[in-house]
Amino acid sequence: MTEPVIVGVSYRRLRVIEDDRGAVLHFFRSDSPDFTTFGEVYFSEVLPGAVKGWRRHRRQTQRYVVPTGRVRVALYDDRDDSPTRGTRHAYELGRPDSYALLTIPPLIWYAFGTLGDRAALVANCADIPHDPTESESTPIDRGPIDYVW
Amino acid sequence: MTEPVIVGVSYRRLRVIEDDRGAVLHFFRSDSPDFTTFGEVYFSEVLPGAVKGWRRHRRQTQRYVVPTGRVRVALYDDRDDSPTRGTRHAYELGRPDSYALLTIPPLIWYAFGTLGDRAALVANCADIPHDPTESESTPIDRGPIDYVW
Repeated sequence: MTEPVIVGVSYRRLRVIEDDRGAVLHFFRSDSPDFTTFGEVYFSEVLPGAVKGWRRHRRQTQRYVVPTGRVRVALYDDRDDSPTRGTRHAYELGRPDSYALLTIPPLIWYAFGTLGDRAALVANCADIPHDPTESESTPIDRGPIDYVW
Repeated sequence: MTEPVIVGVSYRRLRVIEDDRGAVLHFFRSDSPDFTTFGEVYFSEVLPGAVKGWRRHRRQTQRYVVPTGRVRVALYDDRDDSPTRGTRHAYELGRPDSYALLTIPPLIWYAFGTLGDRAALVANCADIPHDPTESESTPIDRGPIDYVW
C-alpha cells in the first residue's frame, strides 16, 4: 500500500492468480483490514473515449477495482477540514501493472475515463447501498477543477 | 425470478441502466431479499474455449453475475436429502438478454465455460470469505456427470 496523496484515499494492489483457463482476481473480503460494512456492489462500464463524473458522496465510501480495460480516476479534495484540501491526484487502474483497490472516502470529488481504445469495467463495493439523495454530480466540463482527459 | 429447477438455486434478472458513456449494471445490495451475509467478492476470468470446474462448497453460497462475455454454468444436484437430487441444469449468463444473479447454494456441483469467442468475467459475491478447506474440486472430465461443453 502506498502513502495516500489525499488523506483518507488508499491504493492497495490486489492479487491476481494466473491460470491458463483465465485468472482469478481478488477484489474485497469481509476480513480485509479495509472492511467496514457492505452496502452494494455494482459495475460501471466506460466506453472508449468516455468520461463519467464529477461526483461526490456525503456518506458513501467507494472501493473501486478495474478488472477489464484501463481507467484514469481523477480526484480532488475540497473538504473544509482536510490537511490535503486543494490537492488533485489521479490514479491509473487496470491490469497488468495496476490491478488495485482504490478507496475514495466521502466528500472527495471524482471522475473517471477510459485509457486506450478498449471499454473498461469499474466495479465498486461500496459501504452503503446506493442512495441518490446522498451524492451530488456536475457535468464533466463544469466540475470542481479543470482536468485534461 | 423464475422457478428453480434445482431446489435452492435462484436466477434473478438484474437491472442494466443504459448510458451512452457506458451502462451501470446492478449486482448485489445488502437490502436485497437474497442478502444473508457478505463474505468476499472476486472475479474469475474465463478465456475463450476454457471451462472451470467441477467444484462444490460445503458452506459457501455463490452469487454469480457475468458483466463481460457469456458463460454457461452447469449445475448438478447430488445432495442426499434434496427433492431434486439427480437433477442437472444449465444457465446461460451474459448481456444483453441474461444479465442475472445466479445463486448456487452449498453442496451443488458446478462448472462454467465461455460461450462464443470472447473472454468472459464471472463475478462472485459469496456469503463467506474464501476458505480452501470447505470446497472440493475434480477435473472437468472426471466430474459428477458427463457434460458436453
